[in-house]
Amino acid sequence: MTSFHCLTFLTDYGLEDGFVAACHGVCLQVAPNARIIDITHLVRPGDIRRGAAVLAQIVPYLPPAVHVAVVDPGVGTARRAIGVAAGDSVFVGPDNGLLSWAVEAAGGASSAVSLTNRALWRDRVTATFHGRDIFMPVAARLATGTSLAEAGEELDVASLVRLPMPESRVFDGGVEGEVVTVDRFGNAQLSATGADAARGGIVPGATVALSWGGREIAMPFGTTFGEVAAGEPVAYTDSAGFVSIAVNGGSAAQRLGLRPGTRVTITVTE
Amino acid sequence: MTSFHCLTFLTDYGLEDGFVAACHGVCLQVAPNARIIDITHLVRPGDIRRGAAVLAQIVPYLPPAVHVAVVDPGVGTARRAIGVAAGDSVFVGPDNGLLSWAVEAAGGASSAVSLTNRALWRDRVTATFHGRDIFMPVAARLATGTSLAEAGEELDVASLVRLPMPESRVFDGGVEGEVVTVDRFGNAQLSATGADAARGGIVPGATVALSWGGREIAMPFGTTFGEVAAGEPVAYTDSAGFVSIAVNGGSAAQRLGLRPGTRVTITVTE
Amino acid sequence: MTSFHCLTFLTDYGLEDGFVAACHGVCLQVAPNARIIDITHLVRPGDIRRGAAVLAQIVPYLPPAVHVAVVDPGVGTARRAIGVAAGDSVFVGPDNGLLSWAVEAAGGASSAVSLTNRALWRDRVTATFHGRDIFMPVAARLATGTSLAEAGEELDVASLVRLPMPESRVFDGGVEGEVVTVDRFGNAQLSATGADAARGGIVPGATVALSWGGREIAMPFGTTFGEVAAGEPVAYTDSAGFVSIAVNGGSAAQRLGLRPGTRVTITVTE
Repeated sequence: MTSFHCLTFLTDYGLEDGFVAACHGVCLQVAPNARIIDITHLVRPGDIRRGAAVLAQIVPYLPPAVHVAVVDPGVGTARRAIGVAAGDSVFVGPDNGLLSWAVEAAGGASSAVSLTNRALWRDRVTATFHGRDIFMPVAARLATGTSLAEAGEELDVASLVRLPMPESRVFDGGVEGEVVTVDRFGNAQLSATGADAARGGIVPGATVALSWGGREIAMPFGTTFGEVAAGEPVAYTDSAGFVSIAVNGGSAAQRLGLRPGTRVTITVTE
Repeated sequence: MTSFHCLTFLTDYGLEDGFVAACHGVCLQVAPNARIIDITHLVRPGDIRRGAAVLAQIVPYLPPAVHVAVVDPGVGTARRAIGVAAGDSVFVGPDNGLLSWAVEAAGGASSAVSLTNRALWRDRVTATFHGRDIFMPVAARLATGTSLAEAGEELDVASLVRLPMPESRVFDGGVEGEVVTVDRFGNAQLSATGADAARGGIVPGATVALSWGGREIAMPFGTTFGEVAAGEPVAYTDSAGFVSIAVNGGSAAQRLGLRPGTRVTITVTE
Repeated sequence: MTSFHCLTFLTDYGLEDGFVAACHGVCLQVAPNARIIDITHLVRPGDIRRGAAVLAQIVPYLPPAVHVAVVDPGVGTARRAIGVAAGDSVFVGPDNGLLSWAVEAAGGASSAVSLTNRALWRDRVTATFHGRDIFMPVAARLATGTSLAEAGEELDVASLVRLPMPESRVFDGGVEGEVVTVDRFGNAQLSATGADAARGGIVPGATVALSWGGREIAMPFGTTFGEVAAGEPVAYTDSAGFVSIAVNGGSAAQRLGLRPGTRVTITVTE
């Protein structure tokens, strides 16, 4: 029997309505001593890719846990509710791809179930709040030692919905890819990793040209913000291992008009 | 002696100034092992009705607790500070109606006191931060087993300030009422319950007409968002039991101009 | 050996990206039972003064703790990472002045170290996320009983970077100073304390004139918001001991155009 001290929680529920608290309450009634880490609840409503990206980047820094994630525009329709074992952890949420990048980052799915065992759900289940009525009560049981197999019918892990990974390509002298996320500081994270950049010949100390949407600007490929003057752009490998574009003391996304999905190329110029 | 593992906290303090953390700190100095569930701190400043609505809808999903709620535009004036026993829980806050709907939802007040016992307050009490200086320290004592009777003079529960309940009316073929809250997703929750709707002849599968402010549109009465095409409106009974209006993948409040207080009528058309 | 039940956390990381959760996760892997109080994570990106002001005002209400604060526009550059013992607590963060007002409020630095002992850091340290890779893992060790001396080389406390304190001046018949912070309610907190005001002859019950930027308006010097009519301004000593300007039921900052840095004078008129 595996039990978990920690349960983590990521949603698009926001912080103003008490939806997160209702889920915490449901959890604590089953698992009074569970430690809950809120990853974020500010995913843009229904933005599965954004939720998947945040989850995959944060999970490596969390203890073994039951990770509950709910960005679920199809709540109450035929989409499956799933539990997936991967690495030291279990992931719980809708089968819409939200969990897929984090499961991959945790080493891939070793087993999965469809959460069909109603004995683990709340007595009354509404059609629009499965986070409270299904995902969280099941996750709390898993945290207290209920096995994943008891939560429902086994699924072929190959049948789980996967989000396509953001694309990137290395060429001689650079990388091309897309903006995957923009963080609070306005730093734009690309789909290419620092390792990709190195294979393309881009290493700290280089000067690069960033091209996107018909524009091009030069900037250093550095290691941190303060290496350029205030207001100046810099490319670097970020704390999650991806090439990112920042403006020292400002927002690269705003200043350069970079958004999730923007296609970019970075080329070494010297 | 009743003690509580959990203490919950709802305010309009926001998350930017550290006011919530000061209250957590005060709580933990009295009750180091209390589990604190933050319901929300993003109630619009001074919006007692909004605070009351969120509290009443979330409390049913929380463990027995000392529930502390502070939306208190009259802080430091003659309004009373109260503690109210209801169901398995105790509610602590200003006597301005904020607690009244949640107390009702918990089964009604069984006893109440005015929090006049200064021995349970912080040593220095400011005129503008009773959450930190009175409500939270008293609540933390109640959590560790101090009885409500020790917190101050008994009050007649009939003397507690009550907010008027939002009105709704069932008629043959429909219901009328008002928008009570709008959530993060832009779903507009009405004062009529799903049971009211059923008594008026509205059941899932029906087509209804929503009328408000001289406008009228048709929509299905369904059970969840994904039953209509993206961008289309749907009426349904929400996860708190109230009739709500949503737009699949969008904001009904924005798209239809629905706000707290908007009067609406829903009529069965087929 | 001193250990701490509580660890507190203040940053400009925001709540949308999971950066705070990554730090919580790193903390709990070292100190699974640490209690974490999040002070705020909504400091405006890079606004060291704002972070310093919030930290200094909230710390007095928190239990003895390891206080971790990270507003760090110079991350990855030559600025030092420090640990500072003051009062019952230890402060951990960048040596850019962020900690200085709180350390002062806690009684002044009794000792300080540069966090140079890499054995307490995470194995891989990135250039842009020292909160996750250095500050939090070191702080978690300190919470579990590692001594500050083990965290790195001792520093002369006189060498620590200090932010200049906001200025204020008492004169016969009033005080002058500046707006230091504006809170969620739009209350503008000044650099002058209530004790300063009293020395200048301003006591509750007085009528005062507030002058700033060529404008002047009269208002009572009261004790709380509800003493004036809705929409009317009032000066008072706030819950942190500073003279503040509020508008009952509204935002003084918006209504009067007061911002951090605005120079103001308050004069007794009767």
